[in-house]
Amino acid sequence: MSEQQPKFEIRDEEQLSVDLIEAQYALKESRGKPNAKSTLILMSGIELAGKGEAVKQLREWLDPRYLRVKADAPRVLTDSEAFWQSYSAFIPTEGQIVVMFGNWYSDLLVTATHVSEPLDDARFDAYVENMRAFEQDLKNNYVDVIKVWFDLSWKSLQKRLDKIDPSEQHWHKLHGLDWRNKKQYDTLQKLRRRFTDDWYIIDGEDEKQRDQFFAQYLLQHMRQLPEHETEVKGKWQQAKIPESLLKPAQEKMDKAEYKKELDKLSKKIADTMRFDKRNVVIAFEGMDAAGKGGAIKRIVKNLDPREYDIHCIGAPERFEARHPYLWRFWNRINEAEKITIFDRTWYGRVLVERVEGFASPIEWQRAYDEINRFEKDLFDSQTIVVKIWLAISKDEQEQRFKAREETPHKRFKITAEDWRNRDKWDDYLKAAADMFERTSTEYAPWYIVATDDKYTARLEVLRAILKQLRAD
Amino acid sequence: MSEQQPKFEIRDEEQLSVDLIEAQYALKESRGKPNAKSTLILMSGIELAGKGEAVKQLREWLDPRYLRVKADAPRVLTDSEAFWQSYSAFIPTEGQIVVMFGNWYSDLLVTATHVSEPLDDARFDAYVENMRAFEQDLKNNYVDVIKVWFDLSWKSLQKRLDKIDPSEQHWHKLHGLDWRNKKQYDTLQKLRRRFTDDWYIIDGEDEKQRDQFFAQYLLQHMRQLPEHETEVKGKWQQAKIPESLLKPAQEKMDKAEYKKELDKLSKKIADTMRFDKRNVVIAFEGMDAAGKGGAIKRIVKNLDPREYDIHCIGAPERFEARHPYLWRFWNRINEAEKITIFDRTWYGRVLVERVEGFASPIEWQRAYDEINRFEKDLFDSQTIVVKIWLAISKDEQEQRFKAREETPHKRFKITAEDWRNRDKWDDYLKAAADMFERTSTEYAPWYIVATDDKYTARLEVLRAILKQLRAD
Repeated sequence: MSEQQPKFEIRDEEQLSVDLIEAQYALKESRGKPNAKSTLILMSGIELAGKGEAVKQLREWLDPRYLRVKADAPRVLTDSEAFWQSYSAFIPTEGQIVVMFGNWYSDLLVTATHVSEPLDDARFDAYVENMRAFEQDLKNNYVDVIKVWFDLSWKSLQKRLDKIDPSEQHWHKLHGLDWRNKKQYDTLQKLRRRFTDDWYIIDGEDEKQRDQFFAQYLLQHMRQLPEHETEVKGKWQQAKIPESLLKPAQEKMDKAEYKKELDKLSKKIADTMRFDKRNVVIAFEGMDAAGKGGAIKRIVKNLDPREYDIHCIGAPERFEARHPYLWRFWNRINEAEKITIFDRTWYGRVLVERVEGFASPIEWQRAYDEINRFEKDLFDSQTIVVKIWLAISKDEQEQRFKAREETPHKRFKITAEDWRNRDKWDDYLKAAADMFERTSTEYAPWYIVATDDKYTARLEVLRAILKQLRAD
Repeated sequence: MSEQQPKFEIRDEEQLSVDLIEAQYALKESRGKPNAKSTLILMSGIELAGKGEAVKQLREWLDPRYLRVKADAPRVLTDSEAFWQSYSAFIPTEGQIVVMFGNWYSDLLVTATHVSEPLDDARFDAYVENMRAFEQDLKNNYVDVIKVWFDLSWKSLQKRLDKIDPSEQHWHKLHGLDWRNKKQYDTLQKLRRRFTDDWYIIDGEDEKQRDQFFAQYLLQHMRQLPEHETEVKGKWQQAKIPESLLKPAQEKMDKAEYKKELDKLSKKIADTMRFDKRNVVIAFEGMDAAGKGGAIKRIVKNLDPREYDIHCIGAPERFEARHPYLWRFWNRINEAEKITIFDRTWYGRVLVERVEGFASPIEWQRAYDEINRFEKDLFDSQTIVVKIWLAISKDEQEQRFKAREETPHKRFKITAEDWRNRDKWDDYLKAAADMFERTSTEYAPWYIVATDDKYTARLEVLRAILKQLRAD
């Protein structure tokens, strides 16, 4: 056991239950409040060490209605899905406690012990590092993550296997592991030691201790939930605003030429995306009226409507806002079609939320890394991320706003808020500049497309996508 | 074609597009407003008749960002899942238009033509009737349902099959049907005529007509969306309040006897539920402090936490309220564990929403039938529904409220609202009486359990569940 293992004593059950319920209701009551929290418990361990029993006892001690249990058979990790994808929908919402019996670590263990394609240590450790980074992001977004390993000696495991009721045996097949095999047991113990440093290890030998220590460890966590951090470290280094944003190019294109080229490119892009085995995520950002809708229309021109999906992103719904801000994108990626287009994106965190003060400085400042990790996970799971900023000049925007107001079927597109946003033009440019500097990665670079001339812009968008599709 | 088929002429494309966009934005703007609507388009038809092309053209005419497309390969309908289950998550929210390429009718056709177990006409028609009832419920809850059949003659189909590009052929295998088989084509046409009476039939022969008529039919619908009905027909027949609610039994039980019996029953119930192949849904309603939490604890006492799920139902989230009120339960049933317990339920519509005026009289009055159909669908798909009303006397409730206020770990359970609800005690009893009378069905009867004595109540709850599990 590592040094940080906390020590507990057996306590009076009734008092422990009262304490747990109080902590649970305090957590529950935090929902929707400025210092809201949630708790995610990842449970793994040796079969028959008593994970299920410990949660059962916990559910008796606290109010079982507010403890959500998610149990999945572990699945082999693949190159085509990030490790968090099948779990993200169950990340707890504010005030909630969620227990995950199946979780990314059980998936990792199954993957590593899967005979036909075992993971080498380097890949194993890379997964662990990535998982910890994801958990740190959760913690930064107020989801406390508690990891508990239920351990059991080889001897005790064999004794328990001898004794179990056949009616309960189905639980013991879940992991696809042979618990009668000493070598496999040893391998598993060796492997899990590569990640359980920051876990609480519970010895499943003594049932009473097991249940009590588990509950007390949770209680300790729930009582020590950190306040939301508000202090920003150091002075913010504002990036220089690129010329392409200050003065977007304005060369005009001939309509006939545009039509010809559009016809060619939109066919090419449909074929390229259709025959690429990877998923494609196309992310649009830019000032209002920069032409996102028009550009999207040309991308999908030669696609069947069943081949793609368009997500139009506005302010989060209240239930979405009660999760880490990337949560609603994790889930939209989960149900993703092969081709997914985002009209506005997760970059809202460092654009509108930053400018309007909906995210605190510490929140949007840490979002760049979170976003980079998110996109890296997508990239690593066979998803091409194409990010396009449509750059419009302030004058051109004004003209388009006015034109919208004068065109019946476009009047819906323009609101008082659009005009108000113009007052913060420079703030948005600054935010965009920081965004380019910090999130233009090798695996997901930004494309800045000048849109004062719509024809040129639409073709440029298609070319950017084609370029990124071939980039590797 | 049936008589009600509307007639259209080819229109100017640009003007049609303007009209569509205006109707689309009007629908979108209705979101969150008192007269909100949504539109669900079910599309089926003969392969290569041009469903996909028609939607593609539609997406070019209107704003493609606000038209959601859901495409699934059809699946064979089974006895273990209601026909709407895999679609319910995609029922449009207020302001939204959703196109379903795969839908319950395509499932039905596949099921009926599935060779090994063909559906007979009676079962086919029963499905259709049930589907229409479901759609009527959607319409009553402001989701307009548009059904369009894309037809194509045998001759044209064969010609088109000859001509298609191999790269597009994958779409034509989706249905698992052999479109070169004349007999199968005829069977399909015969079958679909059993349900397409209330569909708009589009002949896919002429591409321009096809796209235009489809768009115009949608436009006509969107322009004629009915106002929310508010008029209640006839006088409401209030049911008599049963004696068991007015004066719940109060015999006290001895603690030792209770413990012995509880031990026996909770083991029996765990085994019964575990070995029953059906799913179990246990629904609790009753006044505050009637002991729902305590009863639930005893039900799950001998279950593994991975075997069941508890849903604690409060006021709907805003995004939930923007769907038919049963929607959030459809979706909770979808992700159901084998055993699902509801602490408060879909009966909120005819209890709290009725009493507090959150639902209009026409809404709660029609909810009884909607609920009965919902439970019948569950019952028909291998799910036992056990409904339990915990009946407490007003005096006993007052004592429990006071006790809660004096007990530290129970203080969270009591709020000013709980006290306020007592003022409407009689209204709740009336609502409960109507509920029993109208929703105590053969397949899902109500059990009224007196709870002034907690011990007796908890055992009675277990007995009610056991009884219902054996009821058939």
